[in-house]
Amino acid sequence: MTAMDTDSAEHVIGVIGGMGPQATADLLAKLAAAAPVATEQEHLRVLVDSNPKVPDRNRALAGDGPSPGPVLADMAAGLERAGATLLAMACNTAHAFDEAIRSAVSVPFVSMIEEAADACLRQHAGARRVGLLAAPGCLRARLYQSALAARGLEPVLLHPERQRAFDELLYRIKLNHPPAALRPAMAALARDLVDAGADVLLAACTEVPLVLSPAEVERPLLDATWNLAERMVCYARRLEPLPDHALPRRAAA
Amino acid sequence: MTAMDTDSAEHVIGVIGGMGPQATADLLAKLAAAAPVATEQEHLRVLVDSNPKVPDRNRALAGDGPSPGPVLADMAAGLERAGATLLAMACNTAHAFDEAIRSAVSVPFVSMIEEAADACLRQHAGARRVGLLAAPGCLRARLYQSALAARGLEPVLLHPERQRAFDELLYRIKLNHPPAALRPAMAALARDLVDAGADVLLAACTEVPLVLSPAEVERPLLDATWNLAERMVCYARRLEPLPDHALPRRAAA
Repeated sequence: MTAMDTDSAEHVIGVIGGMGPQATADLLAKLAAAAPVATEQEHLRVLVDSNPKVPDRNRALAGDGPSPGPVLADMAAGLERAGATLLAMACNTAHAFDEAIRSAVSVPFVSMIEEAADACLRQHAGARRVGLLAAPGCLRARLYQSALAARGLEPVLLHPERQRAFDELLYRIKLNHPPAALRPAMAALARDLVDAGADVLLAACTEVPLVLSPAEVERPLLDATWNLAERMVCYARRLEPLPDHALPRRAAA
Repeated sequence: MTAMDTDSAEHVIGVIGGMGPQATADLLAKLAAAAPVATEQEHLRVLVDSNPKVPDRNRALAGDGPSPGPVLADMAAGLERAGATLLAMACNTAHAFDEAIRSAVSVPFVSMIEEAADACLRQHAGARRVGLLAAPGCLRARLYQSALAARGLEPVLLHPERQRAFDELLYRIKLNHPPAALRPAMAALARDLVDAGADVLLAACTEVPLVLSPAEVERPLLDATWNLAERMVCYARRLEPLPDHALPRRAAA
């Protein structure tokens, strides 16, 4: 577990995860699936801290629990110490605490939120109204509302009662309820957003793609997890320069 | 990323992985699925080094490439430094190099091989002939043949020509061929072992469960990955004492 020696070498990816653990496994699978390889050894090295002990993000953002910021900062610093040279996080809502992470490391941190909002524009030209399947804390912190507005896009939200149904579903996924039994409920929530005028749907919570597939939705479904995986492969292989948002605030020691 | 302070606390699991990366994601998903939880925070913390750069185990065991031992030892030591207190590895064949790992750390290392052989006895009393879906290096190193023989069980192997078909399939999985397209071929190999007299089948390679489910096989299918996940949850929560094979050779510093 040693860091890359040169600027031209491939990055070692570090994943701040465990929120929940199945979503982190999903990102790890997608990081492999998104990398074209001719040998096993061409796959990217990924260090993962899957730490489900991180305090609940939704409760913290509702003022009902401790901030996960310090734990996330420790995890990020630990991944950097272990050799990660490019970080990402397998939880959309936790990006409300991304400043704690950026302050704790001297390696780049790629935002799932910024990348997904960019992808809405890039992959769905013409779409204006983006339906958000997102956790309550993510909405409360306005992570996607702000990122979409900055790009001239409009968020479409669930009605409050249906959002509560989404929130319950989300926690059932985290607690190992059989995914097959949860799929119809998630598909119904996606349909609500289509009925409310969404041109494109965004799986803006890493639990969503565990129980929702594009085939189940009547509009394009952008998976923020898959999109992050594709972007991380691209950046780790230095096929594209890192976006400004990812650049470290703190110079390397 | 700090180690547990007391002997009574839950373990932090460390996974030596990346061989291949999809198989490691599968183990991570199974570690979550195997843990009964009432809150997200009750899930186990897992540190993963998914390092596909590990030299090819099958080639090394055929005398046709460098040993993965030193890299595996470095990964294990890195996981221990990062705070892991209980190690496992998401690759059956790589267990041929488990002594390199055990020599590099002072924390327990749970063997997927020993656990799967135990499970054959425990879960399938009466079964005597165990069909092995295993990589060529795993067979060459006689990891399962020895572990099964020590328990009075008899391995059933594929005919050499069919084993070569298995080997090719295995590498296609590692290189991201669509799993759905590979399922019929893996099911056919499983049927060959049933025809050869296997009472129970052992998915003795971590790529196998990615393309084979119990429903596709006419005999009980024991998944060494799922079994390892269940055992790790049990040991990490200290619900059962660690087996002798897992105890560290080197005392903690």
